[in-house]
Amino acid sequence: MDPEKYQYFEELFHPKSIAIVGASEANALYIVPLLESNFAGKLYLVNPNRGELFGLKCFPSILDIDGSIDYVISAVPARFAPELMKQCVEKGVKTVHYFTSGFSETGKPEDVELEAELVRIARAGGVRIIGPNCMGLYVPKSGVSYFYDFPRESGPVALVSQSGAFAVGIIMLGRALGIRFSKVISFGNAADLDASDFIEYLGEDPKTEVITAYLEGVKDGRKLFEVLREANLRKPVIVLKGGRTSEGARAASSHTGSLAGSSNIWNAVFKQLGLVTVSTVEELTDTMLAFTRAPKPRGRRVLIVSFSGGSSVVQSDICTGLGLEIPVISEESREQINNIVPSAGSSIKNPLDIPSAYFSAESIAKAVSIAASEDTIDIVLFEFADRLRIFFERRNIIDGYKVLIENVINSAKRVRDVLGKPFLVALPPSYYEDEGKRLKDLFQSEGFPVFPSVDRAAKAISNVLNYYDFLKGKVTQKI
Amino acid sequence: MDPEKYQYFEELFHPKSIAIVGASEANALYIVPLLESNFAGKLYLVNPNRGELFGLKCFPSILDIDGSIDYVISAVPARFAPELMKQCVEKGVKTVHYFTSGFSETGKPEDVELEAELVRIARAGGVRIIGPNCMGLYVPKSGVSYFYDFPRESGPVALVSQSGAFAVGIIMLGRALGIRFSKVISFGNAADLDASDFIEYLGEDPKTEVITAYLEGVKDGRKLFEVLREANLRKPVIVLKGGRTSEGARAASSHTGSLAGSSNIWNAVFKQLGLVTVSTVEELTDTMLAFTRAPKPRGRRVLIVSFSGGSSVVQSDICTGLGLEIPVISEESREQINNIVPSAGSSIKNPLDIPSAYFSAESIAKAVSIAASEDTIDIVLFEFADRLRIFFERRNIIDGYKVLIENVINSAKRVRDVLGKPFLVALPPSYYEDEGKRLKDLFQSEGFPVFPSVDRAAKAISNVLNYYDFLKGKVTQKI
Repeated sequence: MDPEKYQYFEELFHPKSIAIVGASEANALYIVPLLESNFAGKLYLVNPNRGELFGLKCFPSILDIDGSIDYVISAVPARFAPELMKQCVEKGVKTVHYFTSGFSETGKPEDVELEAELVRIARAGGVRIIGPNCMGLYVPKSGVSYFYDFPRESGPVALVSQSGAFAVGIIMLGRALGIRFSKVISFGNAADLDASDFIEYLGEDPKTEVITAYLEGVKDGRKLFEVLREANLRKPVIVLKGGRTSEGARAASSHTGSLAGSSNIWNAVFKQLGLVTVSTVEELTDTMLAFTRAPKPRGRRVLIVSFSGGSSVVQSDICTGLGLEIPVISEESREQINNIVPSAGSSIKNPLDIPSAYFSAESIAKAVSIAASEDTIDIVLFEFADRLRIFFERRNIIDGYKVLIENVINSAKRVRDVLGKPFLVALPPSYYEDEGKRLKDLFQSEGFPVFPSVDRAAKAISNVLNYYDFLKGKVTQKI
Repeated sequence: MDPEKYQYFEELFHPKSIAIVGASEANALYIVPLLESNFAGKLYLVNPNRGELFGLKCFPSILDIDGSIDYVISAVPARFAPELMKQCVEKGVKTVHYFTSGFSETGKPEDVELEAELVRIARAGGVRIIGPNCMGLYVPKSGVSYFYDFPRESGPVALVSQSGAFAVGIIMLGRALGIRFSKVISFGNAADLDASDFIEYLGEDPKTEVITAYLEGVKDGRKLFEVLREANLRKPVIVLKGGRTSEGARAASSHTGSLAGSSNIWNAVFKQLGLVTVSTVEELTDTMLAFTRAPKPRGRRVLIVSFSGGSSVVQSDICTGLGLEIPVISEESREQINNIVPSAGSSIKNPLDIPSAYFSAESIAKAVSIAASEDTIDIVLFEFADRLRIFFERRNIIDGYKVLIENVINSAKRVRDVLGKPFLVALPPSYYEDEGKRLKDLFQSEGFPVFPSVDRAAKAISNVLNYYDFLKGKVTQKI
């Protein structure tokens, strides 16, 4: 990308000064998180009717502020938006983010025209626009934030979202799952800066390892195509496209004024580009997990470890349906495992299905370790059940349970860190929610990706495999 | 079904006396729950090497017990199983359930023969077998149980499962979701009593409103076909078929010795019978919820209420993809809603997407009530986000939040109880797990089905709709 443009984005994501215009208690929701975050630059509030707000001085207008302003956040009503833009031009502001809605998304001609007017003033004056009708930026490293409990730590995932509340949902779910972000951009109606601009930058951003995007429509399809193609060859791009159906397109139109476009064309383009496409919020976060919290898998051959014979059968069906392979483990390994767990009631060919009655402090961790070490295994899908605790608790051998969990974690770390194979944990919900949460936190704190079911883990890792297969095909083509 | 056979099953599920043979501390896991449950009949423990166990007298053999025994649970090693069966014949036992494994599921000729021998002795002596290699019965009304925390209350769902641990998972997840069971049968290798027998009875059982089944293989396909056809015309039959793929079939074979059969044939048969077929554990429990915790929907027209514009677009795509319709609500209703919530940033055509900033104690409940009352709406899909609480908490107006939730619940009850329309709640997971759990418990305690996402709710209700459409087609054919 053009070095000057790259520099613009670097400064956008690390502003030295921010002014919030139209600040009031009524929109505390969007202001307080920024006030509370560790933003290191200068922060100004603007409201002509207030002397002070949230303990900060209030300026009548941005023109009354002495220092320069990099970034303006607008919470003024739509009808005042053009006047604010004129002031921003005068002040030399680089970017204005409009929380403000009531533009093209309403579909009314006068609101569409108001948005066009904003863009005309901004273009003539050299100011860029994020939005309108959006939540703007979340950049943990800069302390730029728009929700109370967004994490302060950065991470490898970038999210470009046409919907602000959607991004909030992803970030807060990510917080619970151990996903952290480099940059999140909610860009709403995309009157000026569009998904293409952000993705182009993120493709080159060294802080971003995986790009994810929620898109409804796009103004310049050709540009987006080029940008996605380039970015996806550098790092995985995961796309959730809203408005794939006629009803979805109608919703998108009244949400961000987007023309969602033909689903067939989008699908064909995404496929040609080798993007990872997902169709639900869950699949999006699952795939983020699989890309960022597991080593790159060497192949598609999975060891399934399950707590229930029936589940292990269903999981085999699901994995096979997704193009994963489930190789039978060697005679030698099976003999070793049979020295640890009785064969009656167990299946150990792969899936490895060991009834809970045979779970001891040592057995399961050892069996997993033996099977996972096989050369024919690339990935471990480990399903656990929080009800196991009760078996130990009720026999007053809870210490055995604690050692068992410790051993399992150590075995899992060995698979990941020594063997270099993804170890995916599935913890289905159950009645024992407290223990379920404890196990989830434990595995997550050790850096493992935790999924609520094996089928979601399997879908996520198959998305990862499909991406790397596409890249390999590209390289082969070049040779 | 033959009245004598029906009577046999009535007595099977309500035994007057049970003997556990081979009882010991080692299998406390399976015995203690029965000892602790409210089983009203006589319970005997049998172990020749023990005088007492779990505070109960131990008999050397069942022949040493004075009274009659309806039901024997075997935990003896496989090699003693035939001898036990001979004693059961002598004693006039009606049914023997073998926890015991090490039979046809191992694939070894001698184990297959051992199972055949059991069946020969039983048939000659007039004793029926459940299993071997299974967990047996859970009948809350009788106090027959095989896991510590199975609920004591009965409910409308029956589960027939070839896998015991699978059934435990479903029952305990059901406990957390508000699903209760009439009868659960884990029947393992199905050496004698098979899925067909149980489903035939459950089809006529007045305590069972929905039949669910996890099947791996079947011995008599023709009989199963007839039984499923009959049962499904009386009440919905939901089937999860394990072993649909070659790898799944291999797992099924080493799990219960089942021949899973051709996936194409099964699919064709299920389709012809109009069964609800599901492919994951999650879809199975979701569909149980949609059938039992919502009124029968009158049609496919859905009102989507969402917390995020982006989600509402994705949800529209998902619903449309499942054959649900999303009618635009009337101009009149939209005007009424616009009197309550500002139009800027909202979309109210359907989906009803109201930004959290506009949530007040009254607004959302009223808006939902207005839109749901439209004649064109058959079903409400209501997505909520636990993070809403924080908006109120941080503004010190937490009482407003409490009233808001109360109003939403009242509005939901009106939709369900007065309008007679399903009200499905989706509560996606998030960082605010405590509030999420509180909301889940609250909606569940009011009898609503709660799902972790709109797409799972939508899939579940579309399964329900497809079942009733099939029935309607049958009736039309008859006319």
